[in-house]
Amino acid sequence: MKLSKIGEFGLIERLAERIASTTDKHWTSARQLKIGIGDDAAVWNPQKSFQIATVDSMVEGIHFSLKTTTWRELGWKSIAVNLSDIAAMGGIPLYALISIGLPSNIRVEDVEALYDGMIDITKKFQVSIIGGDTVGSPVVFISVTVIGCSSDETGKVLTRSAAQPGDKVAVTNTLGASAAGLAMLARDLKFPPKATRELRRAHLEPYPRIEEGQLLLSQGVKAAMDISDGLVGDLTHICEASRVGACLNIDLVPVSPVAKKCFGEKATEYALNGGEDYELLFTAPARIIQRVKKNLDCPVTVIGEITGENPGKVILADKTGNLVNLKRKGWDAFLK
Amino acid sequence: MKLSKIGEFGLIERLAERIASTTDKHWTSARQLKIGIGDDAAVWNPQKSFQIATVDSMVEGIHFSLKTTTWRELGWKSIAVNLSDIAAMGGIPLYALISIGLPSNIRVEDVEALYDGMIDITKKFQVSIIGGDTVGSPVVFISVTVIGCSSDETGKVLTRSAAQPGDKVAVTNTLGASAAGLAMLARDLKFPPKATRELRRAHLEPYPRIEEGQLLLSQGVKAAMDISDGLVGDLTHICEASRVGACLNIDLVPVSPVAKKCFGEKATEYALNGGEDYELLFTAPARIIQRVKKNLDCPVTVIGEITGENPGKVILADKTGNLVNLKRKGWDAFLK
Repeated sequence: MKLSKIGEFGLIERLAERIASTTDKHWTSARQLKIGIGDDAAVWNPQKSFQIATVDSMVEGIHFSLKTTTWRELGWKSIAVNLSDIAAMGGIPLYALISIGLPSNIRVEDVEALYDGMIDITKKFQVSIIGGDTVGSPVVFISVTVIGCSSDETGKVLTRSAAQPGDKVAVTNTLGASAAGLAMLARDLKFPPKATRELRRAHLEPYPRIEEGQLLLSQGVKAAMDISDGLVGDLTHICEASRVGACLNIDLVPVSPVAKKCFGEKATEYALNGGEDYELLFTAPARIIQRVKKNLDCPVTVIGEITGENPGKVILADKTGNLVNLKRKGWDAFLK
Repeated sequence: MKLSKIGEFGLIERLAERIASTTDKHWTSARQLKIGIGDDAAVWNPQKSFQIATVDSMVEGIHFSLKTTTWRELGWKSIAVNLSDIAAMGGIPLYALISIGLPSNIRVEDVEALYDGMIDITKKFQVSIIGGDTVGSPVVFISVTVIGCSSDETGKVLTRSAAQPGDKVAVTNTLGASAAGLAMLARDLKFPPKATRELRRAHLEPYPRIEEGQLLLSQGVKAAMDISDGLVGDLTHICEASRVGACLNIDLVPVSPVAKKCFGEKATEYALNGGEDYELLFTAPARIIQRVKKNLDCPVTVIGEITGENPGKVILADKTGNLVNLKRKGWDAFLK
């Protein structure tokens, strides 16, 4: 059934029912909510005082292709990238507002699958979808705002600007699988079924490190961000914001095993510059990193350190200490 | 200068400076703000407990044409439509998150003009722009999230679902000038300079009724929304949400004088179904409407009443009491 058959308000009604039927009244986000979907705006009464908000948009043909992405995966990812920003602050996500642009010849079932993907991930993190906007558009775009609160009573959060000379640089898990997944999908490469599933999932269903972000904060980490533009580019953002330099040992970077298996040498480049892994990149004194390693369920790898030299710059070295030159420094929406 | 020359991060830096230089540290929104533009997410510590959030998107070719709209006007309007939603709750707007999609051949100066329009209106209402996302897109789109708080300490807000049989239906100011302005721009119609300015402004620089919404709430009004889809369609939304009916006297509807002057009879249709006037449509017992009229600076006109019959339906009548039939019932993004 085409969207043009039921119209904007018919669609909103269907989606609102779908969301309502999957929201658990016991979630903190649901208990705090006074007015959700259906009025001019949503209203809630937060228990914790410090509020956190972020927005991210995905555009057809730029950030995803409907040839290689299912609507359900698209729904998951559009929320995941925002939750990842909340994770990078060490915060608790609570609410999502969803603005979508859709051509009117889109099938209602596809939009419902999109929302099913959103509901999959919001359920996992007990996030309530409280509003949005549905507009006509020649290309599909999804713009998601996530609002949450600080997990720390005094409002402490992880920031990009808190890195200090002497800090170690560390990442959660492994890197490169998302970019490898994108390469596989874009070039229609064939790999064994398990590898194909893993790469696809890494790119299309990234898992935001919400618990990990909160744990980093509680263990005394101060500086963090999520890896969306690529490790080197994102570490550069931390260096710029903190007015420090960094030395990154590329031989220490934990490259995704499946990316390595499928792409060999190329996997290291994906790990360094690919982006969209949505792992946490953070810096802290060595003793705090040790504590984090002990308490975190997922692997944590030290990959370099923060220096007082060359503020805003990242220097790459290999294990022998030789400097390495890399051309690309991550994703930019407008540079060619 | 093309956007592709300075890139996403060059653009963000310029815009962040522009926003910072125009934000007054004494605003409540700025005083509460802990982390603004430049990190993974924004963080603030609200003084009032009840939070309000809304999102609205505008898409090139659907909601605006760059042939007839300046970038500055576009910036104003993209924020105004969201502030209007906060006004319709009787709330106080505080923060804006802005997600824009831009083709890379756009001129940086145009994006700056867009933000100048946003800054014009956010300054007027002491709203701080605290974050956003800038992405590549084949068409220009602007998705704005505005977050605010309830003006009432106990969290009372104006809702669509609070209309009661016996309530009078009223609107602020006059209606129809926005649709008349759109008709003028789209068909390149020529009117005297003053009329042209007024119609253009009504359509492209609507003024959100923030103060008026708060006053309605403080005077005891419970049901309201802003007129974005058209008077009849929006009153229908109130009737649906409140499970009541309404009788609208079309001869009482305050039609914009300039729309009437330029479009004659047609102006009444614009007032009834045109939409985008962003005036407040509200319902309350007659004695409360009287009180509102006394205390509000802008005109308030009673145009009908809420009934217990035909829940979800709006009946139109003229001054002689005869029923009137109207075909269109307002804007829908996907119905043709």
